[in-house]
This record gives sequence, C-alpha cells and structure tokens, in this order.
Amino acid sequence: MANFTLLKDLIQPAKTKIVLLVLDGVGGLPNAADQTELEAAHTPNLDRLAREGCLGQHYPIEMGITSGSGPGHLGLFGYDPVKYEIGRGVLEAVGIGLPLTADDVFARGNFCTLDAAGTITDRRAGRIPTETCVKLVNKIKAANIKVADDVEVTIEPVLDYRFVISMRGKGLSSNLNETDPQHTGVPPMQVVAGDTTSQRTADLFNAWIRAATEVIKDDAPANGLTMRGFSGDPAFPKFKDVYGLKAGAIAIYPMYRGVASLVGMDVVQHHAHNVAEEFDAAGQVWKNYDFLFIHVKYTDSRGEDGNFDAKKAVIEEVDAALPRLLDLKPDVLIVTGDHSTPSQHKAHSWHPVPLLLWAPGMARRDRSAGFGERECARGGLGTFRAADIMQLALAHAGRLAKFGA
Amino acid sequence: MANFTLLKDLIQPAKTKIVLLVLDGVGGLPNAADQTELEAAHTPNLDRLAREGCLGQHYPIEMGITSGSGPGHLGLFGYDPVKYEIGRGVLEAVGIGLPLTADDVFARGNFCTLDAAGTITDRRAGRIPTETCVKLVNKIKAANIKVADDVEVTIEPVLDYRFVISMRGKGLSSNLNETDPQHTGVPPMQVVAGDTTSQRTADLFNAWIRAATEVIKDDAPANGLTMRGFSGDPAFPKFKDVYGLKAGAIAIYPMYRGVASLVGMDVVQHHAHNVAEEFDAAGQVWKNYDFLFIHVKYTDSRGEDGNFDAKKAVIEEVDAALPRLLDLKPDVLIVTGDHSTPSQHKAHSWHPVPLLLWAPGMARRDRSAGFGERECARGGLGTFRAADIMQLALAHAGRLAKFGA
Repeated sequence: MANFTLLKDLIQPAKTKIVLLVLDGVGGLPNAADQTELEAAHTPNLDRLAREGCLGQHYPIEMGITSGSGPGHLGLFGYDPVKYEIGRGVLEAVGIGLPLTADDVFARGNFCTLDAAGTITDRRAGRIPTETCVKLVNKIKAANIKVADDVEVTIEPVLDYRFVISMRGKGLSSNLNETDPQHTGVPPMQVVAGDTTSQRTADLFNAWIRAATEVIKDDAPANGLTMRGFSGDPAFPKFKDVYGLKAGAIAIYPMYRGVASLVGMDVVQHHAHNVAEEFDAAGQVWKNYDFLFIHVKYTDSRGEDGNFDAKKAVIEEVDAALPRLLDLKPDVLIVTGDHSTPSQHKAHSWHPVPLLLWAPGMARRDRSAGFGERECARGGLGTFRAADIMQLALAHAGRLAKFGA
Repeated sequence: MANFTLLKDLIQPAKTKIVLLVLDGVGGLPNAADQTELEAAHTPNLDRLAREGCLGQHYPIEMGITSGSGPGHLGLFGYDPVKYEIGRGVLEAVGIGLPLTADDVFARGNFCTLDAAGTITDRRAGRIPTETCVKLVNKIKAANIKVADDVEVTIEPVLDYRFVISMRGKGLSSNLNETDPQHTGVPPMQVVAGDTTSQRTADLFNAWIRAATEVIKDDAPANGLTMRGFSGDPAFPKFKDVYGLKAGAIAIYPMYRGVASLVGMDVVQHHAHNVAEEFDAAGQVWKNYDFLFIHVKYTDSRGEDGNFDAKKAVIEEVDAALPRLLDLKPDVLIVTGDHSTPSQHKAHSWHPVPLLLWAPGMARRDRSAGFGERECARGGLGTFRAADIMQLALAHAGRLAKFGA
C-alpha cells in the first residue's frame, strides 16, 4: 500500500493535475481469436497514450485474490484493502449521500418475500423495481417506528429491492451478525450481538425489524426484510492528509461515490449518464481539484453479463470520448480497472489488471504498441499491487520530494 | 530488504567473488530519438554481458519514491533504506575516514557568508574551493576552541564549502535541530535540543559555533557557518555478519566510501581518478575480498548537469574499461545504479533502475539484446526492490544453501 508514513515527509505542493480513470472490471481473457475485450476494441486514443506513456499490470489485493468493488477501489486509492475494511452498510449509506458520524451504525437492507409461515421464498422480493422500494420505505417512515428515546433511525431506499438503515446514538456497536440466511426455505435470522457490548444494539435492530415487518406484512412480494453488513464509520485517513491532494470523484453509481467519499474525496454533483458526459463533468470542476477519480461502470456490467462485444463497445465509447478529457490537459492520466471481469467468466476475477500511465515528459516510454493485457504484462512498470499506484501518480505529478540526501 | 533472519541459516562459505558495479544515477528517460543515455551509448561489452546474463529493474526504495544517494546505496547493499537511516553528519564523517564510536555526535558544516548584521547572504560562501576550506578549518583548529573538559571536538574539511564536525563525550545526544535556515536574508539559527537530554549537547555546539565564527569573522566570503544532519553511529548490521562476505569498497567520492563503511566494508585505499583506475585498484586488492563495491560517480553528475551526451560518454568510458574488470574473472558481476538521474530532469528521479546480472553458468539467460532501460523492463529478473539484489548476488555466487528439505 501507499506508505503513508514515508509520504508524510515527502509530499510537496504542485499545480499539477492527476486523473485516475477507472474502467470497472476492464481486465479480460483472450477469446478464440486470441484477443481480450480491451485488445479487440478499436482504441486509437488509448493506443496512442500507451505508446507515449508506459504500461504495467496490478493485483488489486494480492496475486490470486479476486477483489470486490469496494476493496478494488480502496486498493487503487492506495489503501491496503485487507487492512482498511468497509462494511457494506456504510458503503451503501455514503453512496446515497447519508451523512456519517462516529455514532452511526449502518446496515444494508434487502426486501424479501415471506410465506405464511414466515419462511423466505425469494431473498430479493422478486427484484421489485426501485419505485416500489421507494413506496415501501416511505410507508415504513410514515409508521414512525421508535426503538429508543436516545436513538435516531434513518431508512432510505437504494436500487431495486435494496435499502439502507442507520441507527444513531451514543454507545451503539456494529459488531452484529447479518440476518440473511443466504438461502430460501428458512425464516430471516435474528440480529445476534458479536460481543456483550453490542447486545443493546442487536435488541434495537430486532425490535425495529419486527415493527417494520408488521408495517409491510401485506405488501408481498416485499413483505419481509433482511439485513447485512452492519458497520460504522471506518475513519480512514483522508486524501488531503495523506497525499496533499484536493480530490473529486465523478461516478454514476452510488457505491463508487461512497468509497471515494470515505477517503475524503468530494463527490462531484453532475447529471452525466454516459462516459462523455462524465468527462464533461470533469471539465466543469477541473479548476477545483488536484485529483479526479472518474468511474466507468459498464465495462464491469457487460463483463458480468458475459457479453464480450458489449464490453468491448463500452471500451470503445471511452476511447471515443477520451479527447474531451485530454483537452483538459491532465499532467498525469492513469487508465486502469479495479479488478478484471472477463466476459467468459461473467464475474470478477483474480487476473492482473492492465494499467496505462501517461505523463508527458515524466513517464519513461516503454515501447508498448497499444493498450492491452499482454502489452501491459510486458510494460515498463512491471507487475505490482494496486495500492502502489498512488505513489506512482504523485511522483509523475512532481508532488514528491527526494528521500534522503 | 534482504531477509537477514532467513540468510543467517543459509549462508555458506565459497571461494567465489562478487562485484557490484554502481553507475550512480544511471537510469534515464528516452530522448527525441527514443533512446536513453544508456541505450544511446556504444557499449559492446555491457551488451555482450546482457546477452550472456539476465536483466531486470529495481526500485531503490519503493515505486514512485525518488532516492537520495545514501538510501539508494543502502538499498543496493540489502538494507531497507527507510528502516536504516543515516544522518548526513555521519555520512560525511565516515566518508573522510573519521573513526566512529558510540560516544560521537557528528554534523555536516557549511561555511556561509554573513553581512554586517549577521544575516546570511550566501549559504555556500560563494562556493569557495576546497583549498580555502582547508585553510579555514586549520585556522579554527589552531584556535583550539574548548567547549568542555570531557568533550573532544574534531573538525575536518570535506569538499568546497563543506566540513564535518564531531563531538565525542559520554552522554551526548544527536537529537538536535539544524541551523541552516535553508534561505538567505536571515541569520543562522541556534542549535535547538529535540528533547531535554539533548540540552547540554545543544549548548556545547552553540558555544563552539560562537567561538568558531569569531575566529573566521574577517574571512569573507566564508565568515560564518551552519550545521546540518546531527547524527550518531547508526550501528548497522555488518556485511561479514549478515552475508558472510569480506567486502571492500572502491569509490572516488567520500560519501560512497562512508555508506560502505557503515555496513562493514573496508574502504580500499587507492589513487584512482577515473573508472579504469578504479578497476585497476580492484585488481590490486582482488585476492583480499569476496565482494567488491565499485562506485562510478560521474553518470549522476552529468545527469544532474542535464548533459545527455556527457552522461552517455561516462557510460562509454565504463564500457571501454570493463575488460580490466572482467580479466579479474568475477563469478558474479552486477551492473546497476543507486537511482535514476535522467539528464532531461537534471535531478534524481523515481524511475526504476536498470540492472544487469552476469554470472557464467549460473544466470538464466533471458534473450535480452543489450543493456538498456527498456530491455531491463522486460528482463528475466522482473521488477523488484533494490534491497533484494544482495540475495540474488549471493545465490548466483553459490553462497546460499537450500531452505528446507
């Protein structure tokens, strides 16, 4: 991971701007024609940057470990994802902009379908649309469930069948076990305290779940609920403090905004619906930031769909829009992913993630022909852990002093 | 870093000889013709060794971190440069051969120019030549300044406007702040104790500085002085103990002799003024050592000058002299740098450092065409930290037993 202790003495101010462009799950596997999605895509702009810059590949966590999206991004941001754990509840909460204090316990909630005996028949309530989720959450809000005088409960809808709940109060604890049994045919589990100091919080959540389930008992298929990822503020070091960077995050999906905000990035408000619009949003806030994280979701989504051509098309969309970003004249541009999502696997994978580093006058050109997994494997930066990337970015941006005489 | 604990059980005797040839700051960046200094240089000997041996690249400290010369060499010697810190004063002192005991506090001194008000007008005293520095130091010595009955003060000239001072006495402490304000227009600062146990040492240095300044008050431009890098014996593990190697160091510049002596190398006495003479000096002591560190300074100097062609010429000088070294028949020859110093940047940089490992019958040839940064990036040794190099050297010299059955 980034060596925060060492960096503390080396960080120096600069006027340079760094862009970290994350194509979620970009890494792939070669198809029958021996090309990955990235290699098959027509990417004249990325290929030019590859020829002018240098390539490498990274492991989001460690060799052989498949990374989820949260840890994958923490790694890119320079935080050891094994050391810096984010609870699912916190991630969902910050992703929809809920404020986070040290007195909060968050959980991710799922609406589910219960039969007459209280047994789960569908863990995702028939994947109800978000509008139904919003209605159900509003109905529960209206019921004004009170669990204790000194505890404030907040519930907000997320996407589809998902919601987020927080309890705020002194002395609450997130050391609680989740209630989703992970399969159907059994009832939701009770919230169980992980230690004695968490018992009161477990009782409060159980009381709230009973009351809320009563409120929605006639709303099948969403007539029950489960909770996962109980978690509190992880209090991570912040970008400004560890890197001296004023950082902004541009993402369409809440979760990526969430993880960015946990490391102290501003979540940039925008109305972008595609990559070009995200780059335009970057232009609108360009002067405000030293560092911009820009997240492109659909490389991962199409990989998970198992759709090689659609994933390739997303990469081509990024390439076509890239001149808008280059027009802003970043000093350092890093293009990479948070993990691999080969469309052949329809899932995240452990394969190393291609990385392109472009920094005019600063990067050591490495004779790469274009941007692709196999070129990256032979690239001038070698193979490294994601958490080393931020030091590379800072160095190429002239933001690190020399260590020692 | 080298795993001293693991090595302890694996080191075995051998009659093999290892040479670590360090071209200071050798790493560069490609010019408009897409060649670095090393790639552009005519180096038939190094290229042949590259074809017969194998290549790789290393980070002196970590990815993205620019290394100073001291930490860069500690890394090459297998010591984690962040863990094993050397004070500037100690480095200068051992570099000119001052003995080092646990009762010593060293500082690097700079002569400076003061105006009538005692304000610094030139932090380097107009870069006075070494002869002037020697005269001033002798004048101060002749004044026989006494700070305390139980403390012995030593002062010696180094190069140009630099000198080194030591105080030797029981209970002295090096936890002192430097007096160079780092800019002109203000007077030198007082020596300030970093903790209460350092107060006496601070007082002694302040008393000495007052007395010495009085001695040279009419010697403008060198009529004042500042002190930096207060430090004591770092007591590093020694080469003989951690590697089982009797090691010698051949360097023209004091600082590199200094860092070598801190890890237990003998400083080889010689009168070499160029690379060929350094190799001849190696021949003269060849039978006495298992390991020779040979330091070539001017690759770095010409890089810092921003002179691509001159840096290239130094590399060609090394190549032309190389047969003298090869005639000695080293079993393992490693050619690398302590950091990169691209002439385009006129400064040390964070870029990985090319490395060539040649060990007849022992190294796995890797199909490299010649010695250069981009060949090294694709070399058979991969990308690693400098502090791993010593284990490679020992292995190829047949000096490490198998680990486990």
